Amino acid sequence: MSRKDIKLCGFGGQGIVLSGYILGKAASIFDKKEAVLTQSYGPEARGGACSADVVISEVKIDYPYIKDINILVVMSQEAYTTYTKQLGKNRTLLIDEDLVEMDEKQSKKQRWMVYKIPATRIAEELGKKIVANIVMLGFLTSITNVVSYEAMKNAILSSVPKGTEKLNEGAYKKGYQYGKEARG
Amino acid sequence: MSRKDIKLCGFGGQGIVLSGYILGKAASIFDKKEAVLTQSYGPEARGGACSADVVISEVKIDYPYIKDINILVVMSQEAYTTYTKQLGKNRTLLIDEDLVEMDEKQSKKQRWMVYKIPATRIAEELGKKIVANIVMLGFLTSITNVVSYEAMKNAILSSVPKGTEKLNEGAYKKGYQYGKEARG
Repeated sequence: MSRKDIKLCGFGGQGIVLSGYILGKAASIFDKKEAVLTQSYGPEARGGACSADVVISEVKIDYPYIKDINILVVMSQEAYTTYTKQLGKNRTLLIDEDLVEMDEKQSKKQRWMVYKIPATRIAEELGKKIVANIVMLGFLTSITNVVSYEAMKNAILSSVPKGTEKLNEGAYKKGYQYGKEARG
Repeated sequence: MSRKDIKLCGFGGQGIVLSGYILGKAASIFDKKEAVLTQSYGPEARGGACSADVVISEVKIDYPYIKDINILVVMSQEAYTTYTKQLGKNRTLLIDEDLVEMDEKQSKKQRWMVYKIPATRIAEELGKKIVANIVMLGFLTSITNVVSYEAMKNAILSSVPKGTEKLNEGAYKKGYQYGKEARG
């Protein structure tokens, strides 16, 4: 795997930065790759959309800012509007389908590979809406090849608050399984 | 204020990355400066010490990695050992005095400006050890000039989980007050 630029976005309170932190940890500490998380606070952050950028690479990362998004993970409509503008042709897009209404025409024109999951709804069924970000990380892990199953699991379990491991592992597995089924 | 490079460090579970996120948010969204948070996962991260780097500037930040640490905030002995190696002469060092034993000889030789606070103990007195990072942010805000009082307060209140605002505001004020007294 060469360099992968991944942007996670949504609104404040969804745990987007924590998701980025966990993804970077999975890649670096558990999969032994290089990873950098960058949280930029630009004018768009002031508007409400929130994002975390993770670059994963097998070689040292000299330039940590996102260059060309390979994978965009979207958990709010506003973030969708803001960040799909930066998404090139043939890129991969993961969305929370209950929170984001796609512009299907644009998506088709851009030839995006789109994967949809009701992450927040699944989290609510597990009893805690707050783990929607972990459901999404499970989905990301099964849909893409950026991190291994075990690495992501270990990164989640070593990052979430004590006492919430079981809930988070369940959320991770649900998201992962949903992705497996989506891939057929 | 020109560019300030700030490194926050400790061990996993102390909320170091969240602290970095909040600091960047205070500077950028509430104080209208530029800020970038970078979370690198190098070999030292694999050893247990954990850190978050925040660059704050009045102009656009082209290079988001830490160049020369201006302010180092340390919340564990291991992080102290790891990161004081990168701290130049006449720099500012903030430590949790119950968790870090200083090398006073080295500190004197390097002419560091050292500010000590029992952040974790103060947090425990408030009933929640987990808010030690917020006590430390209060201390940082009163000791240095990187962010304003109001900006940091707003950044904390808009970043912590719902229902914990009062606890976190109390932790912030305790740390801020402690810093005010330390400055005399």
